[in-house]
Amino acid sequence: MIKKPEVLAKRLELQFQDISLFVQALSHRSSGSRNNERLEYLGDSVLGFVIAQRLYELFPEAGEGVLSRLRASLVNQTSLAELARQHQLGDYLILGSGELKSGGFRRDSILSDALEAIIGALLLDQGVVACQEWISRLFADKLAEIRLDSWNKDPKTRLQELLQGRRKPLPVYELLSMTGADHAQTFEVKCTVSIHPQFTTGSGISRKRAEQLAAENMLSLLQS
Amino acid sequence: MIKKPEVLAKRLELQFQDISLFVQALSHRSSGSRNNERLEYLGDSVLGFVIAQRLYELFPEAGEGVLSRLRASLVNQTSLAELARQHQLGDYLILGSGELKSGGFRRDSILSDALEAIIGALLLDQGVVACQEWISRLFADKLAEIRLDSWNKDPKTRLQELLQGRRKPLPVYELLSMTGADHAQTFEVKCTVSIHPQFTTGSGISRKRAEQLAAENMLSLLQS
Repeated sequence: MIKKPEVLAKRLELQFQDISLFVQALSHRSSGSRNNERLEYLGDSVLGFVIAQRLYELFPEAGEGVLSRLRASLVNQTSLAELARQHQLGDYLILGSGELKSGGFRRDSILSDALEAIIGALLLDQGVVACQEWISRLFADKLAEIRLDSWNKDPKTRLQELLQGRRKPLPVYELLSMTGADHAQTFEVKCTVSIHPQFTTGSGISRKRAEQLAAENMLSLLQS
Repeated sequence: MIKKPEVLAKRLELQFQDISLFVQALSHRSSGSRNNERLEYLGDSVLGFVIAQRLYELFPEAGEGVLSRLRASLVNQTSLAELARQHQLGDYLILGSGELKSGGFRRDSILSDALEAIIGALLLDQGVVACQEWISRLFADKLAEIRLDSWNKDPKTRLQELLQGRRKPLPVYELLSMTGADHAQTFEVKCTVSIHPQFTTGSGISRKRAEQLAAENMLSLLQS
């Protein structure tokens, strides 16, 4: 049932000097003690660094906040699992029998961890420059798709556009409280959306500022 | 009042080809538009990567959870500000007049950001290998001090030892609720310590498991 790791390596345009590292990267902890957990820890940190550096180079005009948000949108479980699926990574995972039966090869977390572990294995096998090159190719399409103008928009606009893009109802903002004297009021606002069971809050010196913060928190919640 | 950046560079054993990058790394956003915010974003990611890699190499027996906790204990605002102070970084910061008056050169966040920005500047000036070498030297003492056995301990033990080390009262665990049928109960526990105003909670299929999670959450809270 499990396909040969060498086939996947070729598909990913990777040539390992020590193929056992690549095999380890595909081994979920359910498969035994030589598994991909430590490699995933390593790969996660290389990936974060390489993407941060690419974004820094690509967007010289972007501020630190925009760069951080861009990185979070590229490096997260959903996005990594999507990349893993594009390369049929699930077909090559080495899983324990329990995970096999319960369909672990389809799970976002397992796919995303394995992709990070492959990056960790590549670091050990060929060093950081090889990782920079390979990760840049892996993310080439996603990087090319970024339209900075939409990332410079304020949180309320971004949240609205995200929901409209999915053809969902607009977010609802509700004033929870107004406290303090006239010249120093604090507004607290609640933000609710139809696509997540939790609400978020924000507070600030104006209702608009409070809404922006609540929207920002909702965007983080939806991305996490 | 501000000392020459070249003096700090020498003190830090850094030789910049483009010294203006180093000057930028020392420039807080209050000083103007050519400031260290983007460099800090870059440096933060390099630092996370290099420390992850060093810990991976130094502790081949440590699991992913221990490695992640170790990294969080080394790379955080308090720890970075401490390193910055060891090298009198505050004396060389370039701050706007408001921050100068309010003592910004003493603030953890400003010191920690500037140190990360220096790493970002080093990456741009000399590449990732130079960063690996310099960061390894910067953290040499902290890395040498790590005693893995204490990090392998369970969260309740670690929390207890942390409090005992500061001669503070032991943490208090309180059962908040027990729900579910006999064979599938869930316990929820609250953890309180004298050194932090917030409490944490944990839930699990046994009281002990719930307490461990509450302790783990308290350790994260104390570290953040």
